[in-house]
Amino acid sequence: MSSYQRVADPGEGLRLHLNENTAGCSPRVIEALRRLTCEDAAYYPDYTEAHARCAKYLGVADNRVLLVNGLDEGIHAVSFAYLQRGPDGSQRDAVIVEPAFDMYAACASVASARIVEVMPRPDFSFPAEETIDAFTPDTRVVFLTSPNNPTGVAISREDVGRVALSLPPGAVVLLDEAYVDFARESFLDVLAEWPNVIIGRTFAKAQGLAAVRAGCLVGDAGVVARLRDFIPPYSINVFARTAIVAALDDRDHLAWYRDQVAASRQLVYALCDRLGLTFWPSEANFVLVRVGAGAQALVSEMARRRIFIRDRSSQPGCEGCVRITTGVVEHTRRCLAEVEDILCAAR
Amino acid sequence: MSSYQRVADPGEGLRLHLNENTAGCSPRVIEALRRLTCEDAAYYPDYTEAHARCAKYLGVADNRVLLVNGLDEGIHAVSFAYLQRGPDGSQRDAVIVEPAFDMYAACASVASARIVEVMPRPDFSFPAEETIDAFTPDTRVVFLTSPNNPTGVAISREDVGRVALSLPPGAVVLLDEAYVDFARESFLDVLAEWPNVIIGRTFAKAQGLAAVRAGCLVGDAGVVARLRDFIPPYSINVFARTAIVAALDDRDHLAWYRDQVAASRQLVYALCDRLGLTFWPSEANFVLVRVGAGAQALVSEMARRRIFIRDRSSQPGCEGCVRITTGVVEHTRRCLAEVEDILCAAR
Repeated sequence: MSSYQRVADPGEGLRLHLNENTAGCSPRVIEALRRLTCEDAAYYPDYTEAHARCAKYLGVADNRVLLVNGLDEGIHAVSFAYLQRGPDGSQRDAVIVEPAFDMYAACASVASARIVEVMPRPDFSFPAEETIDAFTPDTRVVFLTSPNNPTGVAISREDVGRVALSLPPGAVVLLDEAYVDFARESFLDVLAEWPNVIIGRTFAKAQGLAAVRAGCLVGDAGVVARLRDFIPPYSINVFARTAIVAALDDRDHLAWYRDQVAASRQLVYALCDRLGLTFWPSEANFVLVRVGAGAQALVSEMARRRIFIRDRSSQPGCEGCVRITTGVVEHTRRCLAEVEDILCAAR
Repeated sequence: MSSYQRVADPGEGLRLHLNENTAGCSPRVIEALRRLTCEDAAYYPDYTEAHARCAKYLGVADNRVLLVNGLDEGIHAVSFAYLQRGPDGSQRDAVIVEPAFDMYAACASVASARIVEVMPRPDFSFPAEETIDAFTPDTRVVFLTSPNNPTGVAISREDVGRVALSLPPGAVVLLDEAYVDFARESFLDVLAEWPNVIIGRTFAKAQGLAAVRAGCLVGDAGVVARLRDFIPPYSINVFARTAIVAALDDRDHLAWYRDQVAASRQLVYALCDRLGLTFWPSEANFVLVRVGAGAQALVSEMARRRIFIRDRSSQPGCEGCVRITTGVVEHTRRCLAEVEDILCAAR
C-alpha cells in the first residue's frame, strides 16, 4: 500500500519546497479572520455565502460545486466514491499519469484500487495515447494534473476531451487544477460538455490558504451530489469559510502574486540558460530544473543555507531534477543567487 | 444509502439544538488565533506541539493519538479502514446501537457496509447482550457512544469490556466519547487492556471548538498507524492546531463550563419533575425529555420565539422526545421559561 508522508518541517528559512505562497494570504483575509469571536468558534458553521461566492468566482451553478477541506479531501472523496471494490470483489483501476502528486496513489490504495501508472515522455508533453491505452473496463478514475506537478506542463483542451471520451461508462477524470491560477487556461468553461470530468481546485496556492484548508470539486450536478456523501457535513472550518470570501474579494492581491510568479519563472529560466541546465517552461508557481547527479547535494547545501527546495529525483522521469517554488520575486532572487553560487563552486 | 444532512441554519437566536457550547470557546483561544499571520495561513502546518499536548492531556503515548478534522473525519476513517468489502466482495457488518449519531450509518454506508441496528431498551440502559448477539463473523465495527447522544446515558466499563471481548478477530469498537468531559468517567485509562477499542474525542463540545474542527482518535499504536493512511496529511487546519494548545491551557474555562452544564441539567430535571415529564438523567451537555405528541409543536413554537431545541422523535426509542442543550445556566433558564410557558398554555 502506498502512503503519503508529510514532508518534515525544516524549521526557519525560506520555504520554496512545497509550492506555497510565500507572500502569505491577502491581509484582508487575516482582517476578516480576526473579527471571528469565541461564539463563531463554537457553532457549527453555515456555508451558504462561501459556497455561493465560490460558485460565482468559478462561473458555475451552485449545484456543481462541493467545498472540501483542502483538495486532499476531494481526492479522498473521489477515490472512495469510485474506486472501492465491486459487489463481486473486483478491484477497480486508478490510472495515474506520472510524474504525479503522491496523494493520488495513496488515496487510490486505501480505497482498495489497483494502480495503473502511465510513464512520462522525456519532454513531459501529455501522453494522451499512452493514457487511453491504459484504460480497461475496470478503469474508474484517471488522475490528471494541469498544470502538472512537478513539471509545470499543462495538458491541452483536446487531450482532456480525448481522455474523457475514451473512458468506460461509470469512470471519471479527476482533473486537478491546483495550479491553474498561474496557467493560460482553466477547463471550467467546457465542463458542461464533459459530464465525467471532475475539476479539483484549491485556494492553497494562488490565494495562500494552504494552512486554512480550502478547496473545491466542480463537476456535473449528479456527480457532485454523489460525492457529497463522502465529505463529512462540517469538514470546512469557520476560518476557511470566512477566508474564501475575503480572498475572493481581493483580486489585486491575486493579480500581484500572479505577476510575481510570472517574473520569477523568467528568472529561473534565465539562470538555467546561463548555466546550461535543462528546465521545462512552467504554467505553475514552480519550475522543474534538471541539475543532474548533484541534485541531492544541491538541496542539502541549500537547506544548510536555510533555503528549502525539493529534490524530485525519485519521481518517474525526474531523475536529477529539483523543483523550485517561483513566487515572490525577491525570494526567487535570493534562492537563485545561492543556487548559482553552489553550482558554480562545484564545477 | 443513508446520508447525513446538515441541520439548516435557523438564523439568529439561542442555539440549544446541536449540543454546542453556547458560552463560546475560551477567550485565550481567540487571542492565540488572532496572533496568526498571513504567512501562517499560507504554509502547510506543523502539528508537533498540538499532537504532543493532546496526548499529554489524554494521558496516553504520542503514538496512540491521531488528530482529526473533527470527530466526523475520525468516524469516516474508521469506516473506510474496517468496513470496505473483502477481496471476495463480502460485505462487512457495522453494528450500530440505537439511538445513535446519524453519522455512523452514513459513513458505514458509503464504505459499503451492511448496517446492523441494535434497538434500545425502554430505559436506554446499554443493551450489552443484544449488541453481542448482533455480532457475526462479518462484524468489523461496532459504534458505541458514551455518554450516548441523544439520551445522555453512559455505558459501564464492564459493558464496554464485554463488547470488546466478544468481537470477532479484526473487528473494532469505535467508542465515541464526544461528551465525556461532562461525564463521570472516560475509558481512556483502560484502553491498553482493549487493543480493539478506538476512542473518539472531540474539542467541539467542552472546549467550544465545533467550528474550528478538532478531534482525535486514540487507540492501539498499530491501529492508529493503520488509520493514519485514511486521514489526509494536512487535514488539521492551522487554527485548529493553535486552538487545541490554547484550549488545553485554559483549564478554568473548561471547569466553569462543566459546572454550568451540571447546574443546567438540574434545572431541566426540576422542570420535568414539576410538569411530570419523563427525562433521562444525563452525563452529557444535553437532556432528552419526553414531551409526548406535542414534541414537534413545542420545537416549532420555541423556534418562533428564537430558541432552538431539537425534536428527536424520529430516532428509535425517542418517540415524542426533544433534546435540549444544557450549557450556560442563563441560557437554560431562558429556554426552560419558554418551554414551561408553552407546555402549560397547551394544557
